[in-house]
Amino acid sequence: MADVLRVLVWGENRHEQRDASVAELYPHGMHTTIKEGIEENLGAAAEVGTTTLDEPEHGLTEEVLAATDVLVWWGHMAHGEVSDEVVERVQRHVLAGLGLVVLHSGHWSKIFQKLMGTSCTLRWRNERDRELVWTVDPTHPIAQGVPQPIEIEAQEMYGEFFDIPVPDELVFVSNFSGGEVFRSGCTFRRGHGRIFYFSPGDQEYPVYHHRDVRKVIANGVAWAATDRPERKAPTLERHSVGDFGG
Amino acid sequence: MADVLRVLVWGENRHEQRDASVAELYPHGMHTTIKEGIEENLGAAAEVGTTTLDEPEHGLTEEVLAATDVLVWWGHMAHGEVSDEVVERVQRHVLAGLGLVVLHSGHWSKIFQKLMGTSCTLRWRNERDRELVWTVDPTHPIAQGVPQPIEIEAQEMYGEFFDIPVPDELVFVSNFSGGEVFRSGCTFRRGHGRIFYFSPGDQEYPVYHHRDVRKVIANGVAWAATDRPERKAPTLERHSVGDFGG
Amino acid sequence: MADVLRVLVWGENRHEQRDASVAELYPHGMHTTIKEGIEENLGAAAEVGTTTLDEPEHGLTEEVLAATDVLVWWGHMAHGEVSDEVVERVQRHVLAGLGLVVLHSGHWSKIFQKLMGTSCTLRWRNERDRELVWTVDPTHPIAQGVPQPIEIEAQEMYGEFFDIPVPDELVFVSNFSGGEVFRSGCTFRRGHGRIFYFSPGDQEYPVYHHRDVRKVIANGVAWAATDRPERKAPTLERHSVGDFGG
Amino acid sequence: MADVLRVLVWGENRHEQRDASVAELYPHGMHTTIKEGIEENLGAAAEVGTTTLDEPEHGLTEEVLAATDVLVWWGHMAHGEVSDEVVERVQRHVLAGLGLVVLHSGHWSKIFQKLMGTSCTLRWRNERDRELVWTVDPTHPIAQGVPQPIEIEAQEMYGEFFDIPVPDELVFVSNFSGGEVFRSGCTFRRGHGRIFYFSPGDQEYPVYHHRDVRKVIANGVAWAATDRPERKAPTLERHSVGDFGG
Repeated sequence: MADVLRVLVWGENRHEQRDASVAELYPHGMHTTIKEGIEENLGAAAEVGTTTLDEPEHGLTEEVLAATDVLVWWGHMAHGEVSDEVVERVQRHVLAGLGLVVLHSGHWSKIFQKLMGTSCTLRWRNERDRELVWTVDPTHPIAQGVPQPIEIEAQEMYGEFFDIPVPDELVFVSNFSGGEVFRSGCTFRRGHGRIFYFSPGDQEYPVYHHRDVRKVIANGVAWAATDRPERKAPTLERHSVGDFGG
Repeated sequence: MADVLRVLVWGENRHEQRDASVAELYPHGMHTTIKEGIEENLGAAAEVGTTTLDEPEHGLTEEVLAATDVLVWWGHMAHGEVSDEVVERVQRHVLAGLGLVVLHSGHWSKIFQKLMGTSCTLRWRNERDRELVWTVDPTHPIAQGVPQPIEIEAQEMYGEFFDIPVPDELVFVSNFSGGEVFRSGCTFRRGHGRIFYFSPGDQEYPVYHHRDVRKVIANGVAWAATDRPERKAPTLERHSVGDFGG
Repeated sequence: MADVLRVLVWGENRHEQRDASVAELYPHGMHTTIKEGIEENLGAAAEVGTTTLDEPEHGLTEEVLAATDVLVWWGHMAHGEVSDEVVERVQRHVLAGLGLVVLHSGHWSKIFQKLMGTSCTLRWRNERDRELVWTVDPTHPIAQGVPQPIEIEAQEMYGEFFDIPVPDELVFVSNFSGGEVFRSGCTFRRGHGRIFYFSPGDQEYPVYHHRDVRKVIANGVAWAATDRPERKAPTLERHSVGDFGG
Repeated sequence: MADVLRVLVWGENRHEQRDASVAELYPHGMHTTIKEGIEENLGAAAEVGTTTLDEPEHGLTEEVLAATDVLVWWGHMAHGEVSDEVVERVQRHVLAGLGLVVLHSGHWSKIFQKLMGTSCTLRWRNERDRELVWTVDPTHPIAQGVPQPIEIEAQEMYGEFFDIPVPDELVFVSNFSGGEVFRSGCTFRRGHGRIFYFSPGDQEYPVYHHRDVRKVIANGVAWAATDRPERKAPTLERHSVGDFGG
């Protein structure tokens, strides 16, 4: 890990071009707003770039990934357009130590499904629910500096059952005014990589302008960065008797 | 474990004698209603007895505990009257394999605090919230046979942060109409014993007459019974080189 | 789940045909020995069949999987020959509630990798280590009825780091005489399915004739069977306000 | 948390005074050697003090604990002499955010038992086993900078079953040359506090002079320090409807 955290925000960037209401909320693209929220919180400790689906190789070449400490992922309507080759490349980098922060509808992205091994389906309703995000692990670094609960005035509802493996750590649980609950902040280890999933955020609501949501995403980015000195995946390793000094 | 599951429901039995409203909801004591709910679901597979705080040694002698597979605990206003000696005895039996199901306000009982090592405090409000109990672990035997979600028309609210250790398994999460969430169904292993905490249930609401709540408590009782052949706690054990045949 | 547990043992069945030493240890195929071990322990409670790689569709058609409660998987030298289509089919059934028990070198099978999301690599050495299998979760049903530790005179060594997600439950940890440790018995939930990985067992050692190993596999099969009434995967579910009665 | 981490190493300091062999290994007390190992690794980032059982209130007054970020605990032969009042005070501080690192025979200290809720018993043998400490969570900050495995030439054996609650994170597992395994590095959250248990270390072996053991203890100290701004335990909290803005 470099001294300055190298963060890359990947945005699908389709709704912004197609839907006037989304373009109004996020005039420079959702990825840009997400990037600004990370910068606002991490300051000089991070260098944050962005890239999008329509770049060659979706902007995720070997070189780019090798020079990235934490990748942030937002996608929704075009999951199917992400090439399998790029997904496998990102998975390989995560297993080797790349941090990954998956946001909201990214739950159904190929890369998240591939790392989870499950369908990653959930219950949903887009009717302006109020979401309250409660901290259930107050010792976790991702939960520092946010109120109990975080209040989000209007949001798409995501509810249980959320078909993910049992998270390594459950940090946040959300209440929706329509009556649902959701495990909205979850961590997972895969190989040498750390993954944080955080559900608040949607193209139709100004959630990525919300101070506390931005704080959590920045906390998640800082947490997902590996402490390991090198980017290297676990491998099958042949071992001989007598390898230990004892 | 005997062929027939030997279950003992421990009730504090104070509100029932003091508060007319509680006596009306639970004319034979809350422990009796809880017992009937277990019998309704487990039938001939279980023999269910009851005992209360005011019995000598609170009805929890060595002999009684040794002849019990699963103990169900309900207490609220008189946690402080439970003797430390009995609490230590129950803990010893749990570590040796006694199953324990702790209900609602039992979160603040001496025995639960002792087994958890934390304060077991929480957020609460008694204003007739609607509680919806969502299953987040659909593979768990405790979650079988209940709707998604369980609806409880009126309940005391219990909310996060609930100061417990991270549960071994999180089975249920509740939504309250006032906006809170709660990890309402949790399992823990301690020594050779299994513990299930389930929060729905209160002296001021008819929750122990609710079909689905009764089903969950019965499922929890069946799950908490040990598979081990003998009641014996883990112990410090001195070991010698050469104990293995190899 | 049917009254009688419907178990299917899938064997790669290549070493048995190619290597005389393996054929001597397992004259009717490893899958047959594994099947007999399950029958020995579960008796009339289970109906156990077998199938192999060389059957059409590897013996794992929709119809066969739909009529199976728990699938046991042994493969080693021909993981690459298992068709992706069959692997996706098995994954779909596991997420819908099919139990899966993965044995030994099955750690590197496509189906296990797909459900884990990681490389599933490990450290190994085939030099007749003594393996001692220690129970670290004595309350778990899979650990019932076996000695502490299980002694296996000669085995291939599997060692850490084992690149799997953190198991939901860690039941067994092994010691190898060469100095390694291994998380040898692990459970995972994926969707509506339960998965048990158990590492003892190899084509070059008579491990599947070992009484305690057979007991653990049978325990694992019984545990992996779902309690749910129907085979159905979690799905994206659109939900409307007002769906609850309250 | 202050800018500089305030660490306090608590040593029982009895063997050092009674046993010449221990005094030779640890001429200024084991607590001093442990302190030096932390300083060696954390440098100016930490101020490390020591105190011992024979100080008034065992050196653990309200004032001292309030001015400590992380407490390191080593005890063995005199667990029973630690006053219950001090133990309750330390527990209260841990639940409020004090970090706690428990070493080796501290597994049987009153404070560890109280926070775990179990007997904390284990299997043991003092016959100069070689211990190899394997990392099973390579993404964990406590595991950074140490070889795979750590080799300890001679050690007391600690083996399973170790009667603790399932750890929140399992970082290290040890192999002993006599054939045992042990979950030797475990983390737990309790209230607002973080706890790390690490088993290598004994009064009869020079383990606290071992470079890698010192590194792990220092990593554990850095990890156990809370990120929370204030020292405050979770409490029962009455809540009113309408507390949220929505």
